[in-house]
Amino acid sequence: MSTVDELRCEVADLHRELTRYSLVIWTAGNVSARVPGEDLMVIKPSGVSYDDLGPDTMVLTDLHGNLVEGELAPSSDTAAHAYVYRNMPEVGGVVHTHSPYATAWAARGEPIPCVLTMIADEFGGDIPVGPFALIGDDSIGRGIVETLRDSRSPAVLMRSHGPFTIGADARAAVKAAVMLEDVARTVHFAHQLGRPDAIDQQHVDRLYARYQDVYGQ
Amino acid sequence: MSTVDELRCEVADLHRELTRYSLVIWTAGNVSARVPGEDLMVIKPSGVSYDDLGPDTMVLTDLHGNLVEGELAPSSDTAAHAYVYRNMPEVGGVVHTHSPYATAWAARGEPIPCVLTMIADEFGGDIPVGPFALIGDDSIGRGIVETLRDSRSPAVLMRSHGPFTIGADARAAVKAAVMLEDVARTVHFAHQLGRPDAIDQQHVDRLYARYQDVYGQ
Amino acid sequence: MSTVDELRCEVADLHRELTRYSLVIWTAGNVSARVPGEDLMVIKPSGVSYDDLGPDTMVLTDLHGNLVEGELAPSSDTAAHAYVYRNMPEVGGVVHTHSPYATAWAARGEPIPCVLTMIADEFGGDIPVGPFALIGDDSIGRGIVETLRDSRSPAVLMRSHGPFTIGADARAAVKAAVMLEDVARTVHFAHQLGRPDAIDQQHVDRLYARYQDVYGQ
Amino acid sequence: MSTVDELRCEVADLHRELTRYSLVIWTAGNVSARVPGEDLMVIKPSGVSYDDLGPDTMVLTDLHGNLVEGELAPSSDTAAHAYVYRNMPEVGGVVHTHSPYATAWAARGEPIPCVLTMIADEFGGDIPVGPFALIGDDSIGRGIVETLRDSRSPAVLMRSHGPFTIGADARAAVKAAVMLEDVARTVHFAHQLGRPDAIDQQHVDRLYARYQDVYGQ
Repeated sequence: MSTVDELRCEVADLHRELTRYSLVIWTAGNVSARVPGEDLMVIKPSGVSYDDLGPDTMVLTDLHGNLVEGELAPSSDTAAHAYVYRNMPEVGGVVHTHSPYATAWAARGEPIPCVLTMIADEFGGDIPVGPFALIGDDSIGRGIVETLRDSRSPAVLMRSHGPFTIGADARAAVKAAVMLEDVARTVHFAHQLGRPDAIDQQHVDRLYARYQDVYGQ
Repeated sequence: MSTVDELRCEVADLHRELTRYSLVIWTAGNVSARVPGEDLMVIKPSGVSYDDLGPDTMVLTDLHGNLVEGELAPSSDTAAHAYVYRNMPEVGGVVHTHSPYATAWAARGEPIPCVLTMIADEFGGDIPVGPFALIGDDSIGRGIVETLRDSRSPAVLMRSHGPFTIGADARAAVKAAVMLEDVARTVHFAHQLGRPDAIDQQHVDRLYARYQDVYGQ
Repeated sequence: MSTVDELRCEVADLHRELTRYSLVIWTAGNVSARVPGEDLMVIKPSGVSYDDLGPDTMVLTDLHGNLVEGELAPSSDTAAHAYVYRNMPEVGGVVHTHSPYATAWAARGEPIPCVLTMIADEFGGDIPVGPFALIGDDSIGRGIVETLRDSRSPAVLMRSHGPFTIGADARAAVKAAVMLEDVARTVHFAHQLGRPDAIDQQHVDRLYARYQDVYGQ
Repeated sequence: MSTVDELRCEVADLHRELTRYSLVIWTAGNVSARVPGEDLMVIKPSGVSYDDLGPDTMVLTDLHGNLVEGELAPSSDTAAHAYVYRNMPEVGGVVHTHSPYATAWAARGEPIPCVLTMIADEFGGDIPVGPFALIGDDSIGRGIVETLRDSRSPAVLMRSHGPFTIGADARAAVKAAVMLEDVARTVHFAHQLGRPDAIDQQHVDRLYARYQDVYGQ
């Protein structure tokens, strides 16, 4: 199986994680993967039901969002994904959702504070807010890149809109989207009845370093 | 398959979206579809479990709610659906639920403010509240029509009761019901910990125009 | 199939509605049905997983909770169910859960106000709070009966404990348990951001009368 | 089947209860079981998806966390589990999750007050908070043991981190984790709209004694 075909399968499968964790409704949300070593990406088609997603419905575009292979129009967020790939060569996967708790923080324009060891592990500090940006040109992509370029966080809360996450590959970006909603929810709950203490910066640094190096197989 | 039989299948299937997104419990909630070009509609029967809904259990009525075909009594909300079809010829589908977050806004009689790009996209502005109306005559239907006639929103929050949504067809009305509960929930979360900024009217207008024209296949 | 065997099937099946709507966890919660015309009831066994419930695991007891048929000990709430059947001859089914929103109202000892048409329909007014009562004798049963005897509500919020619901048969009691949690949740949401208006008593009366008479097949 | 093989099956199966009740996301969370009479334990591997867990992927370690059998690295929380088994001989099972409501209480460092009969039954009083502790040495295990040693509660809320639960066997520890999240959620809801009364200590004692002795088969 060619690399592109493998990525079609992987990206189609990863969309199921978005529904499994209720990060998306109807046809909203999308996952993409860069084709390693090529100026290409695999992305979800626009407005197609999650039940109907499979390797064959995934779309191949160049890194300006032009259709290369596939019969369906690419996601309406393709320009944002493409901008990220053009400007962050270390990124191999991008995810966008409107997951409800993360989007509530985005609506208020409020970063998620690093008050849980899980936030230190995965995000390395507060989860930042990006600017309000309209769809239709590079504004959203630029807002993502400017916010994440100098951050350890793989997630940005785009103001009044919702989260984007990035990763070394599509699976890592999906993992970040899942963990983002989880911590957005838990910190929301904590804030409803008080204000939890922030974790000391030195502890955040140790937790982040350990998780990046030691966790998993 | 005749148009009516196709609509029986489609309306039965669409009810599964209501349970998938937890918009309904037990036998509450209903979807209907206008039979194009005829003074007829297909609607859910009254008080039947979602597990037992199929093309054969759907009911055909005229646009005054009189039974035309089917062995079961139509939904107790049939009069409201029928009133909408009689008075809004552009409407091809109607949905009613008591989805919990939207109903909480309806209980307070408070419109959902347009603070998310997804609200601008689908609803074109604030999501309005309709009057308190008793079941049993045309009061509910009249409240829906008077509220939605001059609005871009396909959803109305009927006071102390719950939401109704409309669409060009039943699928569009179900989509609006699903998106309504999603944004009702996200804005609820946002309001629990602050007050998000409204999106500028000019941005709302551009987002709405783009979503109606460009999104999907 | 004998009446008792039919009730074993029905009661076993109805327990699945408790898990479907997340009203129970682990082995908590229980449904019972009176055997019509006999001083007997069918009830869930104590501490058995919902996955393992079937007609054969259901237990038959007399109306003092003594085992009549079955190899398992009956639910630890059997005394409460039995007391209700002895003292409310019109009741054919009883349900107990710790469903989270209803139990939160019970923890505060606060009735659920009649601010939704669905509450007027099914509960006919505010949903009342019962006394704090310890398990082990007739205290819980007595608290249920004293609270519900002169109420239109089929549900009582037992203080610091959780809800019990009753019905003409087990299915009606389960329906009340499902609707109770739904309205407990929606009114909780409404109260988080304000105070909804109560529905006028005359409207409550009309809604209740209509729903009892007209709804369903 | 050997005891170790039986425990591999049991521990793998019990992980499904964590996903069933949404106590975990992605690969987070873990269950372990002591091998009775041996200085060994069976535990989840690190960073493996819940879909891929089975008897064969479970890992056998000694009670210092050294791998004895299995091809995968053990959970990154292995040291904490091992410390508990070394220092609490009565414990046969340990569970760790980041279940959201329990973790919100942990983030605020606030014990869950005993305001529900279900808390008295299973936890015997308030559910305590443990210290903030970094992963990497015995700090977490020591915090668990010091908090639970003189408590009736099988659950501790590790500050800024999440809950650990213990039991006579792995199933009891999982039950405690499920019930913990349930009561953490219900009391959270209750506190959002007021302050429920605590249950009298004498009633807590009677409920706890009865539940430990009488409940179940």
